[in-house]
Formats: sequence, C-alpha cells, structure tokens
Amino acid sequence: MAAAPAISPLARELPPLAPIAGVRLAAGAAGIRYAGRTDLFLAEFAAGTTVAGVFTQNKCPGAPVDHCRRTLALGRARGLVVNAGNANVFTGQAGRDATDATASAASALIGCDPKEIFLASTGVIGQTLPYERITEALPGLHSALKDDGIEDAVRAMMTTDTFAKAATRTATIGGTSVTITGIAKGSGMIAPDMATMLCFVFTDAAIPAHTLQTLVASGVTKSFNRTTVDSDTSTSDTVLVFATGQAGNAPDASLDAFGVALDEVLLDLALLVVRDGEGAKKFIRIDVLGAVDDGSAQRVALAVANSPLVKTAIAGEDANWGRIVMAVGKAGEPADRDRLGIAIGGVWMARDGSVVPGYDEAPVVAHMKGREIEITADLGLGRGRATVWTCDLTHGYIDINGSYRS
Amino acid sequence: MAAAPAISPLARELPPLAPIAGVRLAAGAAGIRYAGRTDLFLAEFAAGTTVAGVFTQNKCPGAPVDHCRRTLALGRARGLVVNAGNANVFTGQAGRDATDATASAASALIGCDPKEIFLASTGVIGQTLPYERITEALPGLHSALKDDGIEDAVRAMMTTDTFAKAATRTATIGGTSVTITGIAKGSGMIAPDMATMLCFVFTDAAIPAHTLQTLVASGVTKSFNRTTVDSDTSTSDTVLVFATGQAGNAPDASLDAFGVALDEVLLDLALLVVRDGEGAKKFIRIDVLGAVDDGSAQRVALAVANSPLVKTAIAGEDANWGRIVMAVGKAGEPADRDRLGIAIGGVWMARDGSVVPGYDEAPVVAHMKGREIEITADLGLGRGRATVWTCDLTHGYIDINGSYRS
Repeated sequence: MAAAPAISPLARELPPLAPIAGVRLAAGAAGIRYAGRTDLFLAEFAAGTTVAGVFTQNKCPGAPVDHCRRTLALGRARGLVVNAGNANVFTGQAGRDATDATASAASALIGCDPKEIFLASTGVIGQTLPYERITEALPGLHSALKDDGIEDAVRAMMTTDTFAKAATRTATIGGTSVTITGIAKGSGMIAPDMATMLCFVFTDAAIPAHTLQTLVASGVTKSFNRTTVDSDTSTSDTVLVFATGQAGNAPDASLDAFGVALDEVLLDLALLVVRDGEGAKKFIRIDVLGAVDDGSAQRVALAVANSPLVKTAIAGEDANWGRIVMAVGKAGEPADRDRLGIAIGGVWMARDGSVVPGYDEAPVVAHMKGREIEITADLGLGRGRATVWTCDLTHGYIDINGSYRS
Repeated sequence: MAAAPAISPLARELPPLAPIAGVRLAAGAAGIRYAGRTDLFLAEFAAGTTVAGVFTQNKCPGAPVDHCRRTLALGRARGLVVNAGNANVFTGQAGRDATDATASAASALIGCDPKEIFLASTGVIGQTLPYERITEALPGLHSALKDDGIEDAVRAMMTTDTFAKAATRTATIGGTSVTITGIAKGSGMIAPDMATMLCFVFTDAAIPAHTLQTLVASGVTKSFNRTTVDSDTSTSDTVLVFATGQAGNAPDASLDAFGVALDEVLLDLALLVVRDGEGAKKFIRIDVLGAVDDGSAQRVALAVANSPLVKTAIAGEDANWGRIVMAVGKAGEPADRDRLGIAIGGVWMARDGSVVPGYDEAPVVAHMKGREIEITADLGLGRGRATVWTCDLTHGYIDINGSYRS
C-alpha cells in the first residue's frame, strides 16, 4: 500500500462537537483490515429516536445498504454500527449473513429489535467481511459508550480520508434550542446522486420520521448531489439522520429554522468531502447561469466538473477556458456556442462565442494560482442556474488509486 | 510546454501506404503554432470525387466543422485543407472569416467551387487562427502535390499524438479491385460520439455520395463511437471519406465487401487512437454480455471504460474487480447485482453476485501485468452485448494535460 498521503491542503479543522442528548458513542479497533487504528464504532440512541435516510443510486449496492433500506421503513432507531476497511459489497449470501449477525448482536446489547439497528461499511469491495471481529468487539464498545464520543466515531470510519470531517449548527423549534451535528467520511469514488460517502447526522430535536425524511431528501439534493470528485458512484453511499427527541420541542412547531440548519450541516459536510478529494490541491466552484432550466444547468455544471481535461488544466494552473467550452458543449444540454460566456475568478474571458476583446489574462492567472477556483459559464439561453463543487485531478489521485492493494 | 512524451508503448508501425488514384497531397510548415515541423496539408481530388462525413456531437463545434457540414450537402469534393496547432474553435466571426478565406484560396488554386473544399483544424481552442499563414502557404503546397504524399499528410496533423496512424485495405466491387486508405490523428479529448479526432479516408472506388454516407455512418458507429480515452468530447471531431471513382468499378455492383473493408479501416484507426491515448500504458477491451439490449450493453461498457477508478486500478496492475462492479452499477442501466459476473483475461473472478469459490488470482495478476487487458462483465439479464476499447489513466495523462500552455 502506498504511504499515507499528507493531509489535504484544502482541509478544515474539526469544530468543537458538543454531545447530543440521547446519543452515546464508542469506537474501537476490531482489526478488520487496518492495524494500529480504530475501525469500528457503535452509537446507541435513546428510546423514541426517529430516523430518515438516503442511499446510493448504484445498482450494485452493498449488503449494509440493503439492510438500512429495509429497516428504514419502521422509522425508528436505537443503534448504529459502522466499520471501515471492508465495504461488504458484492459478497452474496456471506454479506447478508454479516449484516444479520451484526444487527442481532447490537440489538441484544441495546435491548431492541434488530430492525432498529442501522449499519454501514466502507472499504474494499468484493471481500467477505469478517463480521465475527465486529460482533466480538461490540460488547466492549457497548460498555464504553459515552456522551462525547462523536470525534472518536468520525476517526474510526476514515479510509483514504486525510482529515476528519464534522459540522454542527443550532436552531430553534417553537422556542426550544436544538443541536444538529453531522460527521462524514469520503474522499474518492465521489459523484452526485450520493458521493462515495458515509454521513451520519445526530440531533436532539423531536421530529417524526416521515417529516425528517422529507427534510433529508431535500438537503441531500442541495449538497451531496451537487458535488463530485471523480464521477464514480459508490456502492455504499449512505446519509442517515437520527433525531432523539430529547430537546423536548413542541411536535407541531415550525421546522423552517431546523431545515435551514440541517441544509447547512449537510452542505458543510459535502464540501468537506470535496476538500478531501483524493489528490486534490484546488477546491473548485462551478456556477452555470442562463440555462434553459435549473436541471439543465446542473447537468452542464457536472459535465464541466467531471471533465478530466478541465480538472487537469486547473491542476496545472492553466486558465484554459477552451476546455470549459468543450465540456459545456459535450453535456448534451441546450447550448448555443455563439451566446456562451466563460468567466474565471469573476473575470469574463469569453462572451458571445469568442474571446473578450482586449482580454487581460493577468488577474485570471493570479486566480488560478490560488487554492479556491471559481468558474462561471453563462449559457445565455434562459434563467436556469446551478452550482456544483469539485476538485482538481492531480498526480496524487493516480498515486492513491493506481497503487496495488496491500 | 512539457517535453514531448515518448512514443506510446502501445504504438503500431505505419503500414506501407500505396497511392490512391485521384488523390494527390502535399504537406508543409506554415508556422501556425509549432516550430520545426510540418503543420499543414493540402489534398486535391480528381473531378467527380464524392464525399461523406460524420462530425462531433459537441454543441460548441469549431468553425471548420460548420463549414464541412454546409459543404457536405453537395456531396462533391475537390480539395481538403488541414492544419494542426490551432483548432479554430470558439473564435466567432474571425473563425468564419478564416474558413471562408481558406476555402476561397484553395478553390482558386484547384479551380473549383469553394463548396468543394473541406477543412479541418486541430489544436488549441479559443485563439484566433492566423489563417494568412495558411493561405500564403497553399500555393507552394499546390505546386508540390504528389501521389505518394499520404504519409507526409498524417504527420502534419499530429498534435499530442506520439505516433502516426494509418490503415489500409483492398476490396473488390463487381470484380474491380479498389483500395481504401485512412489516416487519423488524436490522443486526448477522446470520447464516443466521435473521439477528439480527425480521420480522413481516401478510396479510388466510385460510390454515390448518399451511399457513401450510409456506409460511413454505420462504420463510425462500430468504431470511433465505441472508443474512449478520457470521456471528453472534442469540438472538432471529423471523419471524412473521399471516393475518387478512378478505379472505374461498376456503379451498381454490390458494396458488401467494400463496406466490410471500410469498417475495418475505421476500426483500425479508432483503435490506433486509443493506443495513443494520452499517457496510456495499457490497451483495454471491455466486453459486456447479458444486457437487456445492445444499447444498454454499450452504455454499461462505456461507464466501465470511463471510470477513473477502473482506469487507475489497471494502471496499477491491480485486479480490482470491485471497481468494475461499482462502474457497472453506476451506469444507470438495468443490472442485477446478484446475477452479475466479472472476468479479467478470460478468468471469471465473480459470478452471481459474489466471488467465485476457490478463485485463484494468480493468472489474473499475470494478465494485469501485460499491455493488453481484457475485461468481461456478464449482466445475466438478456442477450445484449457490446465491445468498447479504452486505455488506462496514468501519471502521463496528468503530465500532458496539467502542464502550462507555452
């Protein structure tokens, strides 16, 4: 295995993470694949906790995704078991045996129905998960559960991540203050319709499961589904939100402020995943304006974001707007070459189908040397717009993904 | 600008290229962008030459593509002018001025209608083409036209190509022998629906333009549209086939043998372009079987071929079939994880949704060390199948595309 890559130059520090009432966590080392680090965590939720979630659209999902999809129907959660090192994907009956055994073991410890246990696994695909290492470790984790275990949990699920990712907000519901704290992992196999990514959000708010589901689905559309690292869509993408109800807010109060805060937590986490894109040296925001509608704008923005030629040009600090024109044109969406404009760092380089007369490359060259790159494409056709985020494509990506599995 | 990359390890030698009756060519150095090399060629066709063509589906095509689309309606050709170094794309009115002036200059020399002149340009996007350098060079090229100029022509249109690409076949039409010789350039910005690529095919056969168009469209579907290097679709992709009629074959004889030979020439050229994929070290063939139909099979095969994680795994000689499962699942086509099988080098590693019992990785590891990699995915759903070709994703691709423009 290649040496661990250095921390991403785009990293953000972990914020202070206050405990969430009704959530206790513990992490440990089960030795599933890695040596000398934690690779497993258990979370226990107070009775009455509701849950909602969104999962990968990949047609070959892992066994834990199947499990969560089934159990989500009840809308109740008492436990969450997450491991790193093995994704339990494409493992056939052995994969189902692993999820059944893990859910049974966790439910026995917590004293609940196995359908109230949620599972996620991340790591190598196609190898049988040695689930006995998980079930043997769970009693020790259950004894060690603590209120302030969130930071330990986020570190235990890291794979090629170079930094730990979390975000937190507070909001009020009917005058009652509630807290929302989310953790995420992911850095490669990241594409819209869920990045290759695990994300768990905990809140002490009291929210019915079906309402929570609506809020989560909306938030994911505006965050994770607008980010891409490499266009590859994981088999294990999972976003789960657990609401313990311990804050005691009125059940019928407006959730507007909560929804805004949840959206912010999800977007923060999605952008942290992009900032940890495998090999990333530049964080790229792409705004598409003037499309025929918002959906078309988003597809154009993603075509730019996923273009290897655009991403390598940015890695090379080359203000090669011709490649952006190419990527807009290849998206298959309505576009008129002779109305198209391209800006980098707020400077319009091309307008109405050709270079801007007297265009001075100097400020754009200076922008390209920075860590945060902004690209705008104005299609000049309508009022559709979208923003997506991605990172550059560097030698680091090849190093991380082109090395032999150990 | 980065040092010129070494010749691709997947290169093929240029075959002997016999002259085609009715085609004379000359190449020269117009100094459009490069120093110390040829960058322009002129071809003159005998009176009566028919033409057919297929162009990029990019919505931001270059001015030469616009020109060819217009002139193709007549179905007649007397000349072809091709330059490297500047693609004349996204150049607005200046781009149209350049194509008009070039077609006028060539038609005056040849003594024909400007609508019988075809044009193609390849190179940097978004910079005004200094077309005077072309029009000033054309008289000298016209004086130097010769029967055996094909090899000079192919070298004059190379950009990031590391080797010259040509293919040739003979066929009979109604007992008359005809020759088909094609040349191509391209190595990056290569994706289906026309690779970033210029391809010109010359034949002495007599074939009506509308018949030729049917044959070319069919041949491109089975060749260039089944190859990809980096999923990026050029603004300049052009395939043109010129039939001089000098062989004197009967006009109503069967074209079956000719069609087969043309298909072979086009497929040879398409695979040569993949063999020169930017940074390529491995040539990859992907067969998808058992899809619901052929179109679905092709979309799945292209999802695998365009997956950065699959391509980097192959660069790393890692038989990481889990990434192939991921790519099949992300294609958005009908797939059933529990019926899916994956083979590499003819060895089935996974069947019916999990690893094959007793699977021995040794022969697969040996296959991965070779230059030619074969991947098969059996979806187990129906009789649809497709083959596509691609190359791996290496540090060389980043080197070539992530360097500053000079």
